Amino acid sequence: MENYIKLYEATRKKLKAYQYFGWLMGWDQETEAPELSVVHRTKQFQVLAEEAYMLQSNPSFMEAIEKLYENKEQLDPDFRVEIKNAFKELRMVKKVPKDELIAYQVLTSQASQIWAKAKNEDNFEAFEPTLEKIVEFNKKLVKYLETDEMKGYDILLDMYEEGFGVKEYDLFFNTLKDELVPFVLEVTKNNNQRFSRKLTKSVWPIDKQREFSKYLLEVFDYDQKRGLLKESAHPFTSGVSTSDTRITTHYHEDNPVSAIFSTIHEMGHGIYELQCDPKYDDTFLHGGTSLGIHESQSRMAENMLGRSLSFWSVHYPKLVELFPKQLKGIDVQEWVRFINQAKRSLIRIEADELTYSLHVMVRYEIEKMLISGKLKVKDLPKKWKTLMGQYVGMKPKTDKEGVLQDIHWSGGMIGYFPTYALGSAYAAQIYESMNLEFNIDEALRNNDIKKINAWNKEHIHQFGRTKTPKEILMIATNQEFNPQYFVNYLKKKFSN
Amino acid sequence: MENYIKLYEATRKKLKAYQYFGWLMGWDQETEAPELSVVHRTKQFQVLAEEAYMLQSNPSFMEAIEKLYENKEQLDPDFRVEIKNAFKELRMVKKVPKDELIAYQVLTSQASQIWAKAKNEDNFEAFEPTLEKIVEFNKKLVKYLETDEMKGYDILLDMYEEGFGVKEYDLFFNTLKDELVPFVLEVTKNNNQRFSRKLTKSVWPIDKQREFSKYLLEVFDYDQKRGLLKESAHPFTSGVSTSDTRITTHYHEDNPVSAIFSTIHEMGHGIYELQCDPKYDDTFLHGGTSLGIHESQSRMAENMLGRSLSFWSVHYPKLVELFPKQLKGIDVQEWVRFINQAKRSLIRIEADELTYSLHVMVRYEIEKMLISGKLKVKDLPKKWKTLMGQYVGMKPKTDKEGVLQDIHWSGGMIGYFPTYALGSAYAAQIYESMNLEFNIDEALRNNDIKKINAWNKEHIHQFGRTKTPKEILMIATNQEFNPQYFVNYLKKKFSN
Repeated sequence: MENYIKLYEATRKKLKAYQYFGWLMGWDQETEAPELSVVHRTKQFQVLAEEAYMLQSNPSFMEAIEKLYENKEQLDPDFRVEIKNAFKELRMVKKVPKDELIAYQVLTSQASQIWAKAKNEDNFEAFEPTLEKIVEFNKKLVKYLETDEMKGYDILLDMYEEGFGVKEYDLFFNTLKDELVPFVLEVTKNNNQRFSRKLTKSVWPIDKQREFSKYLLEVFDYDQKRGLLKESAHPFTSGVSTSDTRITTHYHEDNPVSAIFSTIHEMGHGIYELQCDPKYDDTFLHGGTSLGIHESQSRMAENMLGRSLSFWSVHYPKLVELFPKQLKGIDVQEWVRFINQAKRSLIRIEADELTYSLHVMVRYEIEKMLISGKLKVKDLPKKWKTLMGQYVGMKPKTDKEGVLQDIHWSGGMIGYFPTYALGSAYAAQIYESMNLEFNIDEALRNNDIKKINAWNKEHIHQFGRTKTPKEILMIATNQEFNPQYFVNYLKKKFSN
Repeated sequence: MENYIKLYEATRKKLKAYQYFGWLMGWDQETEAPELSVVHRTKQFQVLAEEAYMLQSNPSFMEAIEKLYENKEQLDPDFRVEIKNAFKELRMVKKVPKDELIAYQVLTSQASQIWAKAKNEDNFEAFEPTLEKIVEFNKKLVKYLETDEMKGYDILLDMYEEGFGVKEYDLFFNTLKDELVPFVLEVTKNNNQRFSRKLTKSVWPIDKQREFSKYLLEVFDYDQKRGLLKESAHPFTSGVSTSDTRITTHYHEDNPVSAIFSTIHEMGHGIYELQCDPKYDDTFLHGGTSLGIHESQSRMAENMLGRSLSFWSVHYPKLVELFPKQLKGIDVQEWVRFINQAKRSLIRIEADELTYSLHVMVRYEIEKMLISGKLKVKDLPKKWKTLMGQYVGMKPKTDKEGVLQDIHWSGGMIGYFPTYALGSAYAAQIYESMNLEFNIDEALRNNDIKKINAWNKEHIHQFGRTKTPKEILMIATNQEFNPQYFVNYLKKKFSN
């Protein structure tokens, strides 16, 4: 056993280094790498993928994992989880042909550029052959990995949210379909809300917006010695350890809201990773346990904390200080109404809290059909429009505003989207549980987000990947997942 | 032979990838990585260094290089140069005991922190034991590597500038001592130059300075699809391929000159690497052939182009547009005088064009004595002051402003400094040669820096590392190195 542990740890050290290089290349690519550097970078990425594969498929490394897994009851509980995950990961090496896997990794490391160009030119056909390859690989992958217990789309879904498959998601989305869709279509039928032209037509200088983002870092106690805030086309969080977790935001001169809530959203993700127990940094247990739990932290920060009147009762004066002309005569109540509008829209990442999960549902239905073979890639744009009409009540005229809007599929992420909606639903359930222990609104009015961070650390963050999403939910809420919290939360908030 | 070539190329591909990862980690560290991320990053760096050493010291890789070297006449000329260099590099693995080499690498990876603290506290004794070890290793290194053809300090000098040893540098620096030192001491005896308080006491907003830097990127035709400009404490250039060569600058609100000439200086370096033949990107022939030739490109851009009246006759209006108040009533002639001041000073990196090479000469003399054993580390501060008095006419009162000012020795870089002075001298010779083919001032007045870039590409840049510095100089100027060009240039410029 001792030798197997040593062997496992020696290889893990190298794999962690390769993971780090890949992480840094990704961060660089998405935030500043020059446009034409992609070909050269991809070559280095290919070497990295091959070297990592060599390590992962080394027979003695695989044997070590298998032996440790056989004797997992003797292992320390954290290490047992790591070995359980490593054992599960072995299937990629054992069941998927190496050349296909590496070719796919290389394909998806480059495809975002093809997608970006296609989106920019509103030309689905330019992306279609690439997406075709990606979908085909995922269909084959599902075949390679299927077992008696798990088949089809479930295999992909489980990769992002362990224990969640079509059965669980159908239950969740059917609740939304039954209860939320009619409510949303009703609430958004008429967009009668009127706001001051100051809010809708002002110019919001970007240097002032940057200043407010910096202020928000302080408010949320985001440790800038272990992280940083940068700018990128699409905001994201990129963490590699508890000493290095970075976030991005983006600024639009005609709109201050986007940057504010992007920054808060990404801080929710970032604080999760920064608050993991540092003892996991050199293991594969660092980071969020699942995308859904991760998203619960960003959505809670963004929507439940960041869009609340309690929050702005403290921080609105700072915003007015930075934008005195733009916010002249606008009181905090109008501001909070302004940032909580609900309306039908086409773009997921710009969608409001109420309609957001319905955008996700469109993608879930489509992925399910793509993987089962009921939908062909070429028919995607049409299906997209149909489903948007049904769930959101609005159809895009272009593919740029439709099926081409998201980067995810170009990165091979199929099974990922549903976790976005799940995250909001988890957040509603977790919020209720936290609120039983202390009054969250009061903490916000006291500008004490540290208290909220501390609760999340204790109940969620510290565990890293040692608990499954279902276990985390049980620790944090004493209950299994229940989407009714989410529906109730939205109905209450948006009935006014 | 075929098999040796294949083996060499397969390992090179991996080494190039490792080089890329190291490059990116360095870039990240120097420009934005969070303060506390250093420990985690260092762990990954150690894995990288160990893996690279494993590859480099692999017996079959070494054998391939030796066999290819034996048969080098059969190789394609470019590849022959690469193998010649690789064969030369083998000496590090073969002649230097691994443990000593690694201990030295560990020492120099930590020493910059010790140096920084000692400098900060103006305490040479705190750095002395570390510097002692570094000098001792270099003295041993010289012994390990010496051959019948090359001994002593020459071995270190040759690492940074192939073909340049004490004989060549003595000739160069003796010319400076004989002709430049008395001239400089005379010119700088009285600092009678007076400038408007607008120039010396204004505030120069950083966003406007940034705008001017962006303007300069256009002026120099710096391809931003293959590079970028960022900010860092100490400006530098960091290139990894012809599709990715990045530069940094820094801004000071009380002084616009520093950013302008840092940006232009780094563009000189960057354009060199961007204009290499892209066919070298995946080989070890990409990049500048030597530090001296590299510096010739940055110094020419900065001093000979960027500080000329011809240049500013075109671009001064843009500067005035950005800083109308600060430059009100200042004509272009006064501006050009302001950016071409010559005076005695203590800090090399702040020294002007006239005195700079004399700062370098101080370091050259000291290194020569250290490696030959004529000077002990403990006697460095005293010797420093003496030489500064002789060459620059000014002695530092503190070691912080004296022997502790530069980071280089803490990183083990002994033999590096002389290339800085050599670069300026090369630049003067190259400029004259270019000026025989077309009138450079006219090109500047026509805002046609493309023409200058094209000439440098044809005569210098395209070759990457396939030519030695001496060969490059012969191609570009039809002559061997002649420091008289440099002396004449400075005397002419600073006699007015």
